[in-house]
Amino acid sequence: MIKAAVIGATGYAGCELVNILSSHKDVKLSYLASHSYQGKRFSDVYPSFYRKVDSLLMEDDIEKAASVSDVIFLALPHGLASKVVTRDILREKVVIDLGADFRLKKRDVYESWYKSEHHSPDLLKEAVYGLPEIHRDEIKNAHLIANPGCYTTCSILTLYPLLKHELVETDGIIVDAKSGVSGAGRSEKTANLFCEVNESVKAYGVAGHRHTPEIEQELSFASGSDVVISFTPHLIPMQRGILSTCYASLKKGVSKDDVDKAYISCYASEPFIRITDYIPETRYVRGTNFCDISFRIDERANRIISIGAIDNLMKGAAGQAVENMNIAFGFDETEALDRKAGI
Amino acid sequence: MIKAAVIGATGYAGCELVNILSSHKDVKLSYLASHSYQGKRFSDVYPSFYRKVDSLLMEDDIEKAASVSDVIFLALPHGLASKVVTRDILREKVVIDLGADFRLKKRDVYESWYKSEHHSPDLLKEAVYGLPEIHRDEIKNAHLIANPGCYTTCSILTLYPLLKHELVETDGIIVDAKSGVSGAGRSEKTANLFCEVNESVKAYGVAGHRHTPEIEQELSFASGSDVVISFTPHLIPMQRGILSTCYASLKKGVSKDDVDKAYISCYASEPFIRITDYIPETRYVRGTNFCDISFRIDERANRIISIGAIDNLMKGAAGQAVENMNIAFGFDETEALDRKAGI
Amino acid sequence: MIKAAVIGATGYAGCELVNILSSHKDVKLSYLASHSYQGKRFSDVYPSFYRKVDSLLMEDDIEKAASVSDVIFLALPHGLASKVVTRDILREKVVIDLGADFRLKKRDVYESWYKSEHHSPDLLKEAVYGLPEIHRDEIKNAHLIANPGCYTTCSILTLYPLLKHELVETDGIIVDAKSGVSGAGRSEKTANLFCEVNESVKAYGVAGHRHTPEIEQELSFASGSDVVISFTPHLIPMQRGILSTCYASLKKGVSKDDVDKAYISCYASEPFIRITDYIPETRYVRGTNFCDISFRIDERANRIISIGAIDNLMKGAAGQAVENMNIAFGFDETEALDRKAGI
Amino acid sequence: MIKAAVIGATGYAGCELVNILSSHKDVKLSYLASHSYQGKRFSDVYPSFYRKVDSLLMEDDIEKAASVSDVIFLALPHGLASKVVTRDILREKVVIDLGADFRLKKRDVYESWYKSEHHSPDLLKEAVYGLPEIHRDEIKNAHLIANPGCYTTCSILTLYPLLKHELVETDGIIVDAKSGVSGAGRSEKTANLFCEVNESVKAYGVAGHRHTPEIEQELSFASGSDVVISFTPHLIPMQRGILSTCYASLKKGVSKDDVDKAYISCYASEPFIRITDYIPETRYVRGTNFCDISFRIDERANRIISIGAIDNLMKGAAGQAVENMNIAFGFDETEALDRKAGI
Repeated sequence: MIKAAVIGATGYAGCELVNILSSHKDVKLSYLASHSYQGKRFSDVYPSFYRKVDSLLMEDDIEKAASVSDVIFLALPHGLASKVVTRDILREKVVIDLGADFRLKKRDVYESWYKSEHHSPDLLKEAVYGLPEIHRDEIKNAHLIANPGCYTTCSILTLYPLLKHELVETDGIIVDAKSGVSGAGRSEKTANLFCEVNESVKAYGVAGHRHTPEIEQELSFASGSDVVISFTPHLIPMQRGILSTCYASLKKGVSKDDVDKAYISCYASEPFIRITDYIPETRYVRGTNFCDISFRIDERANRIISIGAIDNLMKGAAGQAVENMNIAFGFDETEALDRKAGI
Repeated sequence: MIKAAVIGATGYAGCELVNILSSHKDVKLSYLASHSYQGKRFSDVYPSFYRKVDSLLMEDDIEKAASVSDVIFLALPHGLASKVVTRDILREKVVIDLGADFRLKKRDVYESWYKSEHHSPDLLKEAVYGLPEIHRDEIKNAHLIANPGCYTTCSILTLYPLLKHELVETDGIIVDAKSGVSGAGRSEKTANLFCEVNESVKAYGVAGHRHTPEIEQELSFASGSDVVISFTPHLIPMQRGILSTCYASLKKGVSKDDVDKAYISCYASEPFIRITDYIPETRYVRGTNFCDISFRIDERANRIISIGAIDNLMKGAAGQAVENMNIAFGFDETEALDRKAGI
Repeated sequence: MIKAAVIGATGYAGCELVNILSSHKDVKLSYLASHSYQGKRFSDVYPSFYRKVDSLLMEDDIEKAASVSDVIFLALPHGLASKVVTRDILREKVVIDLGADFRLKKRDVYESWYKSEHHSPDLLKEAVYGLPEIHRDEIKNAHLIANPGCYTTCSILTLYPLLKHELVETDGIIVDAKSGVSGAGRSEKTANLFCEVNESVKAYGVAGHRHTPEIEQELSFASGSDVVISFTPHLIPMQRGILSTCYASLKKGVSKDDVDKAYISCYASEPFIRITDYIPETRYVRGTNFCDISFRIDERANRIISIGAIDNLMKGAAGQAVENMNIAFGFDETEALDRKAGI
Repeated sequence: MIKAAVIGATGYAGCELVNILSSHKDVKLSYLASHSYQGKRFSDVYPSFYRKVDSLLMEDDIEKAASVSDVIFLALPHGLASKVVTRDILREKVVIDLGADFRLKKRDVYESWYKSEHHSPDLLKEAVYGLPEIHRDEIKNAHLIANPGCYTTCSILTLYPLLKHELVETDGIIVDAKSGVSGAGRSEKTANLFCEVNESVKAYGVAGHRHTPEIEQELSFASGSDVVISFTPHLIPMQRGILSTCYASLKKGVSKDDVDKAYISCYASEPFIRITDYIPETRYVRGTNFCDISFRIDERANRIISIGAIDNLMKGAAGQAVENMNIAFGFDETEALDRKAGI
């Protein structure tokens, strides 16, 4: 039985973390912190947890959290985690950061996309990118796990086998992604009001969204050469879910069979990836830690269209964070994550 | 370990039954039947269950289901269950009917509201109304359990303590209820198309909805005298959830404290009822088997407004059906039902 | 051609006012003011108006607005209008206030429900309650028109003929109303975020909503005696629309025919009221200035259930405000309001 | 004053046609036909039109329609229009077909994508593709106008200036489009039920959607060489609207300024195209005949991302059909189409 802290427990990803961890047979919630709601009970903020998680919300102080916990989950806006994580904490504890601070290996890439200085560049090299399908072995021994972004998890997993197995050209890759509104967080912005989001669809961050370098980093790692993509996220009037529609040019002579084999080779034994005949829909993975992936070949254009779907709060945030904890602490990787979607 | 059959497994309530039962530690799904999709796999119809429930869908034949099962769940349109349930089956098996056929004790009430003859009037007296908060002891020994309707579960639970403890007048009770669209089932009707339901709200079945006599039956039972209510259901553009806003005139001298005591007296030890300070919202119970209830007193009008919320597919259908099974077979009542709602 | 100012032009009701007035053949928009967006163009805030209404947003100063306008629409939070409207302005101009400040005839009723002092009690007696179906003659000569609330317009219109013609008991009236989210305005509140509203329904302001005394005032006026109602509003995951489900006890001997006659007598020549056979749905009036009304008699309970539907931003706010302007300035009452709903 | 018939008046596009035409100052609705609802009133099927359009629905017989009309709108499933349009009708009347039968110039392209024989191949050469921004002059004298598809209108208009002005490579073009559910029509299919569509997003028709050849035909026409695209439509949980996110590789040396000039050159005087600074959102064009277009250049990938938005029932169907009628009959092109979107 380990003890877990969640700092930033009252955001949407934090809430889902609390939800999962409170059902985990090897975990006890030891410290829930919230900047905005300190002093209230968790169930005051999320009444659905009444009589389930009524703990008091504490100060968002990582030292205090660490003093009573084995693992600390940080679900904070970018730029905050790198200010508070210390080598002292990492020596004895495991920190799983759901923010962006430790995802990019190169400080200058971070600083150019995030337009701000990095607060702990020296920690970048010991941070492990927490995508188990690619970095499971490193995660096992990690003390600082950078949990991937929601768009990036979905997009990387969908494209990874194509680049790993050198089936597609490394230039000309396009990721057109669609996300539910919980990905935008719980902050009070006009743009996230019901009447602004409902009954509409929009692109945003066109040609400049910060998840771009994260996708490129991992795809370059897979292919062994620099990959530059175009990434366009869209906002969909629904609460949860991400769909990544990925376009790439097939190399000469690559057949459907080659592609099938690449996906099977990479993912056949993965507990949370389903290679499907049906075209993925976000409702099929809602509430689960699955990433559903399927592809079609457009022979007229010699192009592959690979489509992936995840729940942005699960495999795209809290679910994957718990998966990383399970790996790091030697628990069954699917513990507390073996959920099914219903209707 | 018992074996369970679900007949009508591909409707929304059937799907939720499969979802719950497939996680139940004491149950093995032995027979899933579907009129429309016989021969397909369950996960062909609901791809979210791919690699989780891939069983073949069988003929909707209760005899065949009974031959391989200990409990048979019927999730069928009204009028069908009473055609197929037999004394032979009931002798050895437990039948839990999610339809309306065995809910009303009086044959003539059924026939006048449903405008059709009852096929098995002789079975009515051995059917138990499966609302555990009121009939738990009878359910323990029942072989034919009539699972209550979704509106009725929510409305009865919300009003029951007021009538049981004689705090309100028995005439003048009004139930104004709001339901998500899954309550209308999965049949292909123009009225249930996205573009007909979305961005609108409507009342239907005004002054004639068939859940009325069911609510009256149980409230009359609680109060010991005939209760006549006005019940108006409304359709809300959301998938799941029922909210019942119930109005009743307080008897002279009844205080807020009296009402608090009545609710506590009835429900303090109930695992699935939460008496709340906050006004219930359907999202707080989404995906759970909870019924949240709260009340306010309108002193100007000497009236109590009690509000209850459930998930229509859980406590309003499949969840309560499994709860009934748990009781009838001596399992922990909350087994497989201890879910939390998230965001 | 008259000149019109809108103060509070960037709220949802203000936006709809601009929308209607910019199509009105006898009106020129002379002054659009916004507290939050002063200095921007209207189409910067609402890009749908790009190339249609690109006017600069001015200071929210009623004196400046009045100096260039014949009519001033105020779409402000309550408590502000009564601070800025003066006798000087009213002498020469017409003010149409979409807020609550001048709706209640009795200062003490206002102060007890709004928990604050009234800033211009002396103006209350010259304010006209702008519900044309009841007060058309007074509106013709009014200089200060208190535009009714959204819930109140729908609820009063639905119940008015029943009380005017003494067909129902004056006690025991219940109004259970359902509203889209635009009724809550455009302010940045967590409660109005997409992820908090979508896929849920809730009651709020139970036994204490401020539209209660407004409904009671007009129904008491209709019946000639004090009417006390219970009013419960609910929030629905949709943008626009209000549905009022109204319950009242029929007086002895009142027939369906009597009720039909009462509605016809009151509304036969009304341009914006449709007495319908079908049960109203908010989508049928979306974008229009119609109030659809229908009723059913519940004979078992000797109760009438009257249901009304409006678009809260049209007949419930901006549409009715323009209707009032049309009446006050002698234009055709339906000018710029003759829209149809589509799908 | 001309007389107009609508065959297929009770589908969503048909309904919007009736909506627009009934407000058109130069048009009288002479014949509304419906296969499914013949004998009912239009307002029985769409109660929002009660007291506005109460006409009886007639047999869907083009001869009868033609005998009382100057223009006949056909809003039928594909394959039907080509069976009923005759040279006799076209001699004296104007037929505007909202279906796919006459859009593709080449019979074999039609037959290979639609997998069925064309019924009137001889009429293909006199059909005019009704996209006014490209074919306005031909539309003026046309008797058979093939109204473009919804996805195609949005995608062609967004990409047309880039190909016309030879700014992008003709291979490698990708159109990732998102549509509201009304595009799927009003037929009773499980896939279009509220609970199947809501809270989810999916791609469909991947690498094989029938709007592909239509887009290619017009882009090839613009560029003077064969254009092959990849087109992927997605279904969004909203009623109306299409967003096309279009990706193309910029030719060497092409600057932002060049692109600006190309769009201005093609569209500066177009009444229904808005080149915008803001990224288009479907809500900004909802209910209007506008196509909003904006672009961003992704310099890292040397790629342009052009984004267009329309209302699929307006510029994507009924609005454009009326625009075509306005042109063919010499009316003001914007007559009855000068609507604004609100919130």
